[in-house]
Amino acid sequence: LEKDFLTGLGLTCAPYAAVSTAADLEAALRKVGHPAILKTTRLGYDGKGQARIMSLADAPGALAAMKGAASVLEGFIDFSHEVSVIAARGLDGSVACYDPGENVHKDGILATTTLPARLSPGQRTDAVLLAARILNALDYVGVMGVELFVTPQGLIVNEIAPRVHNSGHWTQNGCAVDQFEQHIRAVAGWPLGDGSRFADVVMENLIGDDILRVPQIARERDAALHLYGKAEARPGRKMGHVNRIIRRG
Amino acid sequence: LEKDFLTGLGLTCAPYAAVSTAADLEAALRKVGHPAILKTTRLGYDGKGQARIMSLADAPGALAAMKGAASVLEGFIDFSHEVSVIAARGLDGSVACYDPGENVHKDGILATTTLPARLSPGQRTDAVLLAARILNALDYVGVMGVELFVTPQGLIVNEIAPRVHNSGHWTQNGCAVDQFEQHIRAVAGWPLGDGSRFADVVMENLIGDDILRVPQIARERDAALHLYGKAEARPGRKMGHVNRIIRRG
Repeated sequence: LEKDFLTGLGLTCAPYAAVSTAADLEAALRKVGHPAILKTTRLGYDGKGQARIMSLADAPGALAAMKGAASVLEGFIDFSHEVSVIAARGLDGSVACYDPGENVHKDGILATTTLPARLSPGQRTDAVLLAARILNALDYVGVMGVELFVTPQGLIVNEIAPRVHNSGHWTQNGCAVDQFEQHIRAVAGWPLGDGSRFADVVMENLIGDDILRVPQIARERDAALHLYGKAEARPGRKMGHVNRIIRRG
Repeated sequence: LEKDFLTGLGLTCAPYAAVSTAADLEAALRKVGHPAILKTTRLGYDGKGQARIMSLADAPGALAAMKGAASVLEGFIDFSHEVSVIAARGLDGSVACYDPGENVHKDGILATTTLPARLSPGQRTDAVLLAARILNALDYVGVMGVELFVTPQGLIVNEIAPRVHNSGHWTQNGCAVDQFEQHIRAVAGWPLGDGSRFADVVMENLIGDDILRVPQIARERDAALHLYGKAEARPGRKMGHVNRIIRRG
């Protein structure tokens, strides 16, 4: 549904096909090709609910991993990097976007978001216009994360996340109005912050045992720590993040 | 006691004398001269608990305004402006100071703090060393505000405030570690943020009916609003503050 919606707006997604049964998956693999990735359509996050199909022999196991849930098969995209646009739309229909950040994932989980992203001026404009088109089409109110693959053929929409987004946490230390306040401003009918950025920032997620590095990070200059107060550090669990402010000049 | 302590450290305060009775006040006025200002020694803030003595005829009224509380008479200082240093000292004795901010008061209440303050490099160093001397002498742990008058003869200590301080609110939008986190870091034995600043900031207090300007301020670019959630706006009551980030370059 999400991908039909996005392609209906004239945006580009990875090749995809809906999958519920083994016959669906066979047809989907013919359409999409492989390698490909099978994803549950609901409640997937941080690489959970995903299975890679590198060769056709992986197909039965991937389908079994979905546990009967409706899924979507996606073809691999040859992208150079991923960026995300954190966009907001107010009650009055006004839209404000933060500068796109460049994301690096590790083991399916966001590792870092770097501002500025590597984008040409044209790509930067495309990314923001594309995000605005999505929010307007949905008559959306609030903050949304729009993940984009950067390819030589243009920007491809990876997925949209209708909420404040991990890749927008850098706004806490780079903007006068961060994504959390922006969301509240949007739903409360306040003027939106314009999303402009007064610092370069690298956001690093603290995942699992990364939390053990906090004593060292606390000694770093220009490092703003945000800890979530979770009692137990488990592998793959997001425990906090650090925004490193990059001095200009 | 505060002024005896400060002068005992070799720092300069305004001329002063302790006052409890009419006879004390008469002697104090002979020592300090006038115009002068009579202040209660405890629980005064935002111009409350103060009375100006412009001529000797003002003395009885000023003493009556103290309602029998122990007071201190201070001579007027010919200063060009006031700055304050927000300093922190950790459990291990390490000291970190934020860059001094320049304060403007209105009706006895802090109106704005501007970073950077107008200070020569030598004055800036003096201000920070002087603050560190105070914290070390007290074996202090936590954040303290040190208010200084800038005069042609050097820096004069106005008063010290053993806590996070209104004139340090700008750190919320100019530093990786703000004064509130810095205080918690100090008392919890964490490494202190180094206090360095990555933006110029002007903090403006929102006092009383200033809160009615919030809808306009929310539309300003680079304005970070901090509202205190107080139910009622009364004259002289601090309702919030706004940190305006000044873009460099």
